[in-house]
Amino acid sequence: MPAPTVTIIPGDTSIEVKAGTALLDAIVAAQGDIEASCGGSGGCGQCRVRVTAGAVEHLDRSCLDAEELAEGWVLACSSRVIENVTVHVPAEMAAAQPSGAEAVNHDATPTRPVEGLVHKSFIEVDPPSLDNSFGDLERLRIALGEESDSAHSFCGLDTLQSLPRVLRESGHRVTATLAAEGYRSRAHLVKIEPGDTVASAFGVAIDVGTTTCAVHLANLNQNSIAATGIEYNRQLNRGLDIISRINYARQPERRAELRQLILETLNGIIHKLCDENGVSTTDIDSACVAGNTTMMHLMLGLDPEYIRLDPYTPVANVPPLDFGHELGLAIHPNAPILIAPGVGSYVGGDITAGLLRTVLASATDEVSLFLDIGTNGEAVVGNGEWLLACAASAGPAFEGSGIRCGMRADPGAVERVRIDTRSGRAEVSVIGGGKARGICGSGAVDLLAELWTAGLIDASGKLDAARGGGLVQPRGDTSRNLSYTLVDASDSATGEDLLIDQHDIQNLLRTKAAVYGACSFMLRSVGLEFSAIDRVYVAGGFGRFLDIGQAIAIGMLPEVPVERFIYLGNASLAGAHAMLTSSEAREKVVELASRITYLELNVDPAYMDEYTAALFLPHTDPARFPSVQARRPS
Amino acid sequence: MPAPTVTIIPGDTSIEVKAGTALLDAIVAAQGDIEASCGGSGGCGQCRVRVTAGAVEHLDRSCLDAEELAEGWVLACSSRVIENVTVHVPAEMAAAQPSGAEAVNHDATPTRPVEGLVHKSFIEVDPPSLDNSFGDLERLRIALGEESDSAHSFCGLDTLQSLPRVLRESGHRVTATLAAEGYRSRAHLVKIEPGDTVASAFGVAIDVGTTTCAVHLANLNQNSIAATGIEYNRQLNRGLDIISRINYARQPERRAELRQLILETLNGIIHKLCDENGVSTTDIDSACVAGNTTMMHLMLGLDPEYIRLDPYTPVANVPPLDFGHELGLAIHPNAPILIAPGVGSYVGGDITAGLLRTVLASATDEVSLFLDIGTNGEAVVGNGEWLLACAASAGPAFEGSGIRCGMRADPGAVERVRIDTRSGRAEVSVIGGGKARGICGSGAVDLLAELWTAGLIDASGKLDAARGGGLVQPRGDTSRNLSYTLVDASDSATGEDLLIDQHDIQNLLRTKAAVYGACSFMLRSVGLEFSAIDRVYVAGGFGRFLDIGQAIAIGMLPEVPVERFIYLGNASLAGAHAMLTSSEAREKVVELASRITYLELNVDPAYMDEYTAALFLPHTDPARFPSVQARRPS
Repeated sequence: MPAPTVTIIPGDTSIEVKAGTALLDAIVAAQGDIEASCGGSGGCGQCRVRVTAGAVEHLDRSCLDAEELAEGWVLACSSRVIENVTVHVPAEMAAAQPSGAEAVNHDATPTRPVEGLVHKSFIEVDPPSLDNSFGDLERLRIALGEESDSAHSFCGLDTLQSLPRVLRESGHRVTATLAAEGYRSRAHLVKIEPGDTVASAFGVAIDVGTTTCAVHLANLNQNSIAATGIEYNRQLNRGLDIISRINYARQPERRAELRQLILETLNGIIHKLCDENGVSTTDIDSACVAGNTTMMHLMLGLDPEYIRLDPYTPVANVPPLDFGHELGLAIHPNAPILIAPGVGSYVGGDITAGLLRTVLASATDEVSLFLDIGTNGEAVVGNGEWLLACAASAGPAFEGSGIRCGMRADPGAVERVRIDTRSGRAEVSVIGGGKARGICGSGAVDLLAELWTAGLIDASGKLDAARGGGLVQPRGDTSRNLSYTLVDASDSATGEDLLIDQHDIQNLLRTKAAVYGACSFMLRSVGLEFSAIDRVYVAGGFGRFLDIGQAIAIGMLPEVPVERFIYLGNASLAGAHAMLTSSEAREKVVELASRITYLELNVDPAYMDEYTAALFLPHTDPARFPSVQARRPS
Repeated sequence: MPAPTVTIIPGDTSIEVKAGTALLDAIVAAQGDIEASCGGSGGCGQCRVRVTAGAVEHLDRSCLDAEELAEGWVLACSSRVIENVTVHVPAEMAAAQPSGAEAVNHDATPTRPVEGLVHKSFIEVDPPSLDNSFGDLERLRIALGEESDSAHSFCGLDTLQSLPRVLRESGHRVTATLAAEGYRSRAHLVKIEPGDTVASAFGVAIDVGTTTCAVHLANLNQNSIAATGIEYNRQLNRGLDIISRINYARQPERRAELRQLILETLNGIIHKLCDENGVSTTDIDSACVAGNTTMMHLMLGLDPEYIRLDPYTPVANVPPLDFGHELGLAIHPNAPILIAPGVGSYVGGDITAGLLRTVLASATDEVSLFLDIGTNGEAVVGNGEWLLACAASAGPAFEGSGIRCGMRADPGAVERVRIDTRSGRAEVSVIGGGKARGICGSGAVDLLAELWTAGLIDASGKLDAARGGGLVQPRGDTSRNLSYTLVDASDSATGEDLLIDQHDIQNLLRTKAAVYGACSFMLRSVGLEFSAIDRVYVAGGFGRFLDIGQAIAIGMLPEVPVERFIYLGNASLAGAHAMLTSSEAREKVVELASRITYLELNVDPAYMDEYTAALFLPHTDPARFPSVQARRPS
């Protein structure tokens, strides 16, 4: 299926997205953030946009009346892009920014100048003269107001080699791109171009995830995002999660291979974005990269072995800038490349960058909980004064692996499940419509919640063959491994039953227990209850279509009023973009990284207690989930 | 012939040299400078050393009595190495340093610590711990006392990749090599080695000449020169002088070729020095390079075209340090490489580095003239307050080219000539003894002086067929092109007559006129006479065996009392070595370069007048050379 294009008015920005992408994500990717205080679960109605051409798949119409629906209004959070579409974004919506987040321009007129890693200046250099013996470089430095004899550090050999030609071909009218103070990678002078090219300034913000990689091509002159690209990390078939990648990376040649695979992924996206936007890769003069600690190690070819071994030590939490040109990104070789600072082996720069999108980046007394649930689950709790972070080995159960009919949130994936309590039969929503091929993360959460609400499983997750109207049956060679038929073979795209068995359920329970246990452990360690939490930020692609109520029902998320949840989308990518365009964000992210106290769960028996207690539905201590208990038929 | 070895006591240093090398040069190369106020012409007797094993070719015995000669005493300046030899250098001689020059250690005990471009520290790094989440890099920075979050610039990817292994294999006891403040090339942390390697510290000082390249391998821990290597610049067959190289370099692929040839030359020397001294090329952590502006352009792959064209503009007088690792020298890839700052297209870093060996580097009222006579001739005049410099296109006549039987100062070259006034017949000294193959620079100066003194040529250089006892004969197809037979075919190594003809003489006159004219022009431009000159420094290999009196006789050098002449040898190489080992020298050389006023001779008619007037023997104005006039038979 060809990738559909979303055109956004005002601004007339176009962005090509994968079919099935949430309309809200497409708008955010193209133009910046939009607040949805419901966390994208469709309750708040704040993300209303009007579709004027094409159609979207609209999942939740409850906030809109018939007239609005007729006019084309939809909730961006609950709509999926399935074909080319044009949407009008109301001004008041565009203006609603989450506090602490960076403002991004919503139309083509520059509002706030970017404070990037580099700065372009158009200058006129004095032509050479018999009156002095200055070289081309010396005259350039004079024109730039830089002292020529003070610093031994100024430019790379490539720049110097091109200098006489560039100066003479342009009549000594050139544009110099200089690295901002403190952000020099290979050289202070990044490049020199003939004529005035100040208006053409591009950078990339990059999120390197274990499963997917995403890139914003940023137009730094307009302070806007020109385009966004997302691709699966090409390392995927070398291990689904971090630990299996680390195990794979034991030999140097395999580290070289994994490094190459990340670079191919990122450069593939960058080349595509450049081609589609008429930008040359060497026009990209700066980059900010955020990723978890292991991904950063693999991107740099660093041995990740000691991340896995007690006492869980990274080679570097804050990789220096020096080796931008050695990294191999398809951008200008002298471009500064800033990597978001990590905190420890399992809380990386993706988390610190993501925190830039929360009130935790500003001085606040309010206590926030930040959750990034991906292949690994990271949690941060704190306020403007203190911050704790930890990581839970969530595993890939919600990323499409670890359960037998699991798949990623692509077309064909079951994303919503409702089980009729009496018949035990499931009704499913499939991404993109059509027949189901598997079940994605949000579908799995729904399924688990519905199985429990319908009484088909007990608190320990055990299927009850006596209920479920024959849909619960033993499979395989042992009668102990019961499974529940979610979709009958006759209705599935594969021609086989879509099943969930005891092993799948145990995997899901372990994942949800890891997430909840980590949050609970951190709060206990500072003597707080969940009721003290003012905001819960949910980051990561998995969170987009997650039904917060169902996630609470299975005891993965704590029982906090739904309106306190804020869905952030790819906060790591957005944070990398903030770092690319704002010196304040760059200072903040360093401050955040240094403020965070990292808790190592692997070695703390108190965490194991929390984890074990959370292996039940919703929890060993039902008092923690009073409203959930009420859902269950007695 | 195998290269003979000179062993020097005290210190027991050995150095392998080319047969025919002056013993003084060998001692200087191995252990540092020795003053010879006579300028190496054998008059001052200050460079007396005792040969205790082997023998040297001793050219001038006038300063020594029979007993001294029997004891093995020789003048190092007037002795050539022809076989393996052991020499004792008296302590008082070793101590006699030219003022303003850097002291170099003369025995194996460190005297003054080197202040190099890098510094090694042995440190113990805290092992990783569950008590904190620091990475290897962060703990290393803490051990080094460097703030981990302040600078984005610290080390290259190679260093970071090796860090976990180096730390763990060494029990976290490592040696860090850090670039000195302001001398970072690729990265602040140059390298990290297991264990304590502080005692092993090497650097290279490099002189890139148009004709020859020379390298000191410096032992920075002992502040001594471990070995010296000299080779012809492999660019030689791409043009003998600077202008022909620039012409050759017009196409980018030829610039790449010339760059490769310089690197092959230098790396050939470095590899040889390393092999012979048990040093790995990656043990070399710093380098200082001095060379003329064109050679620096060709070494860096910069287009030298605009050096040749009015207004004679280099790409850079002061190339930055940033591209050390891109340069391609066979040393550690992260080593800082400092290039001596140039002044203009024809006065380069070889001159500023060379000036470090003179009183011009210190505050002095005395006026000095510095001459570097090589393929190009550069002259500097001034004192502690003002400095003027210019370059004369001397041409390669004194470097073995430009005259038909010219050759470099290799074995077989005529280096001394005495012509019997009555017979007109020449007596010659040949380097290494044996039959003559050609005539070198110092021989050509001698020959020209003797031809004039004997009355065989007139003031315009015209040979007189009526004199010379039949040795002056027409050659070739025209009776106008007379030539003088220096060595008869029966006595020559080639089996043919060694001749000098009118064209040769005119080339020599042009060269000497260029040198004298440049000096005279500079002095006139500041209203001084040569009598105001307190010191004349002669640098460059050509000067070593130059007879100062004969050079004055032909009017190449001004008539200044001989005792004011100081021969410096390869001042460019010695200056590069000073920069490698002394922060004061590095500051001085920058100050010297910025203080020098560069005069462009090509465009000044007053220079042409001086040049034309100097085309006569000794000069159009004989009053400038009163003592010379007295030598000529009336």
